[in-house]
Amino acid sequence: MKLIADNLRVTRPEIRRALQRLDPEPVQDLVKACKARGAWAIDVNTGPLGKQAAPGMRFFMDAVQAVTDLPLLIDTANPDAMAAGVKAARNPIIINGFSLEPRKLAQILPLAREHDAAIVGFLLYPDSRVPTDAAQRFEVALELMEAAEAAGVAKERMIIDPVIPPLAWADGIVQAREVVKVIRTLPDLLGFPVRTIGGISNLGTNAPDRAARLVIEQSFVAMLAAAGLDYALLDILNPDLVRAARVSGILAKENLFSWGMVS
Amino acid sequence: MKLIADNLRVTRPEIRRALQRLDPEPVQDLVKACKARGAWAIDVNTGPLGKQAAPGMRFFMDAVQAVTDLPLLIDTANPDAMAAGVKAARNPIIINGFSLEPRKLAQILPLAREHDAAIVGFLLYPDSRVPTDAAQRFEVALELMEAAEAAGVAKERMIIDPVIPPLAWADGIVQAREVVKVIRTLPDLLGFPVRTIGGISNLGTNAPDRAARLVIEQSFVAMLAAAGLDYALLDILNPDLVRAARVSGILAKENLFSWGMVS
Repeated sequence: MKLIADNLRVTRPEIRRALQRLDPEPVQDLVKACKARGAWAIDVNTGPLGKQAAPGMRFFMDAVQAVTDLPLLIDTANPDAMAAGVKAARNPIIINGFSLEPRKLAQILPLAREHDAAIVGFLLYPDSRVPTDAAQRFEVALELMEAAEAAGVAKERMIIDPVIPPLAWADGIVQAREVVKVIRTLPDLLGFPVRTIGGISNLGTNAPDRAARLVIEQSFVAMLAAAGLDYALLDILNPDLVRAARVSGILAKENLFSWGMVS
Repeated sequence: MKLIADNLRVTRPEIRRALQRLDPEPVQDLVKACKARGAWAIDVNTGPLGKQAAPGMRFFMDAVQAVTDLPLLIDTANPDAMAAGVKAARNPIIINGFSLEPRKLAQILPLAREHDAAIVGFLLYPDSRVPTDAAQRFEVALELMEAAEAAGVAKERMIIDPVIPPLAWADGIVQAREVVKVIRTLPDLLGFPVRTIGGISNLGTNAPDRAARLVIEQSFVAMLAAAGLDYALLDILNPDLVRAARVSGILAKENLFSWGMVS
């Protein structure tokens, strides 16, 4: 299980200010910290960026790529910003992402073929509603795979995000289990080892304190690892969570163990 | 997932001394501490007890039952000690346990019928070797269920222990995953919701430090909970592990969630 930093997001005040001032330093400091903690990749969550889509995205991509050659997930729902990000990419990238929403099918999905990039597909309905059980998610996954094929995107380029819900949602805990089930069974259902990604930080939305959030995330990341999750998007600056995720990945996958691997 | 204290064991020096002196106080202090931490049951691990099987077991059972009415797992490989323990029981008991070993089939399994008690069946070969994959474990489980039926023990009385291995074994990490798989699939395979139990403390045998052991146990207990484990036998005096186990049990099973459940 590869760990992707979700720390770089424009909703953080210091990152929003950095964008407003076009000051790369706070962005770069954050990226260096994520890299130092062993992130396999960095999610660059720019938000929609409004009318400054292209220059805003270029600011982020240039700032980040000046200090790391790690893979980058370009994380925006705005097709113009996504196109600018893909164009500005020198590092390996993952387009994050598309869904059955018509605008994304039309404008984001084709970028994966044009730039031969991996792309995340969200298990959401065209109007962005969340499916309510595993069976509905399977149907959406099949539609995403068909859409990718129709757009000339190889299935091996696809990474499915079943969208981990906040536990605080009315049926969040049931949906979280459905997500685990989808991750475990989707490769068999699709008949090939499709890769999966999950955003761990969603789960603990509105947690009353860090300790409660941590224990939830530690347990859930272990369940995801056991289900075969390929990419965990998480707070890479939380060492307790990262250790739990690494150890869970080892328990889920490695065939040799020594205590040195977890110390 | 119910949590069973594995703390009361004769291998602990103060418990061995208590037995030698027939001094119930150290035993009772430990049981009270386990109860205070919310143990659902106490595993009374007396060891074989040698020639003092009956009086030794009576000492433990009397000491424990004087301070708690929690369910007790009577944990000994010695049929004479087990018979004495079952006879001395006033609390609800679980016989822990039997295997395909001829002596245990002949002398321990019948105690479950005689005393209408639940009984743990270990997935081990008759010579106590450990099966090396899930398929072998399924075969042993079927043989245990057949033996129970032949002895007049209702299948609902059976609790299967697939024997969690130390990770430090040559293929311990692979076997640990096989155990998780067995727990997840055994109820379907047997066609009824057979209960399962797992000893978490085995996993971390020879851990270099408490922190490494904890992170392994936290991750693995979450994987076991997600697989549907009914009873986790663990160090109930380790609050970090217990919190992880409780939260994992919630994530694995509950249909309503509130942050108050994990705080």
